[in-house]
Amino acid sequence: MVNYPSGMATNKQNNKEEKTNKKVKLPSSFSRANRGMNLEEDINISNEYYKDKKLCLITKRPTPINVVKVDYSKGALITNAYFEKQSTTDYNGVYKGKYIDFEAKSTKNKASFPLANITTHQIEHLKNVLFHGGIAFFIIEFVEHQETYLLDAKFVIEYFEHGSRKSIPYEEIKKIGHLIKRSYLPRLDYLPIVEEIYFK
Amino acid sequence: MVNYPSGMATNKQNNKEEKTNKKVKLPSSFSRANRGMNLEEDINISNEYYKDKKLCLITKRPTPINVVKVDYSKGALITNAYFEKQSTTDYNGVYKGKYIDFEAKSTKNKASFPLANITTHQIEHLKNVLFHGGIAFFIIEFVEHQETYLLDAKFVIEYFEHGSRKSIPYEEIKKIGHLIKRSYLPRLDYLPIVEEIYFK
Repeated sequence: MVNYPSGMATNKQNNKEEKTNKKVKLPSSFSRANRGMNLEEDINISNEYYKDKKLCLITKRPTPINVVKVDYSKGALITNAYFEKQSTTDYNGVYKGKYIDFEAKSTKNKASFPLANITTHQIEHLKNVLFHGGIAFFIIEFVEHQETYLLDAKFVIEYFEHGSRKSIPYEEIKKIGHLIKRSYLPRLDYLPIVEEIYFK
Repeated sequence: MVNYPSGMATNKQNNKEEKTNKKVKLPSSFSRANRGMNLEEDINISNEYYKDKKLCLITKRPTPINVVKVDYSKGALITNAYFEKQSTTDYNGVYKGKYIDFEAKSTKNKASFPLANITTHQIEHLKNVLFHGGIAFFIIEFVEHQETYLLDAKFVIEYFEHGSRKSIPYEEIKKIGHLIKRSYLPRLDYLPIVEEIYFK
């Protein structure tokens, strides 16, 4: 279970309530973070579905938080802490015995996926996963196109390390990536693509 | 990287300093938690070693924290939060393409390992890992014996679900588990045991 901070509710209504009742000041990038969270939510719900149906077991790593101060007089209440950047990826797990590892990213950009969204640590991590024989990919959502692609990590690593641009063109992703089917359940059905490209 | 709360330093000296200078009230279970953290630290350092030597890639899931309040006026400072119980396990990763998943526990008990240390969620998680063909085990430290064992998850699940006692006798673990060699580097060399029992 992922626990969102109260000021970062996952739908606009809650968000508005927060603003009105509690006067929580939201960062300017909120709407984008919010969109990103929808992708996260879609994946989490799909993973729950896969788990229930015994299809695979993929879990989200909790958001790393750096705890600065704990009040033990109040039963280990954390009173000072901050969010940290994930040095690995968001998701990993097991499918047919094999190790699966991926990162999910969302962009509002229409023409390309900006590589600034990915950290060097994450690229290093995915290279290690591949070295050890694991399966590694990205799930990239183009919010404006209402399309989400599964993209093999090798391709993204290549672009990150040797590409001349600081982004991957949308047209390129459309060509090389695999469009993930959206439905009611699972919301983002990425597992058949994993089966298709890594197990056949 | 795991970030320990400042009041939970990993060695006794720091602990004492905390007590003297900052007057942080420590919970009564502190010394036990402290010992548990040494095991965690030993495993983290061993995993770093394995990663550097390109032997395997095992990472620790960050401690899940339930964030209640965030002060956005101070750059997303978390001002109210609490630690949550891990619903999965602490460690997972990849070795020779295969998915590895384990939980590490430490006990001061001499005669047995109390199963109260394990949650039903963790047992469910490990059963799922096994169902999907992953490798699942426990690393159990007997602090007073200065011994640490790798114990296949099936054995622990069996005890948890069908055992008549609420603990696994030390003698039983000594017989069925695999004693992990301690050294300078890696501190807890559990990988050769994984190789021996799951890959041969």
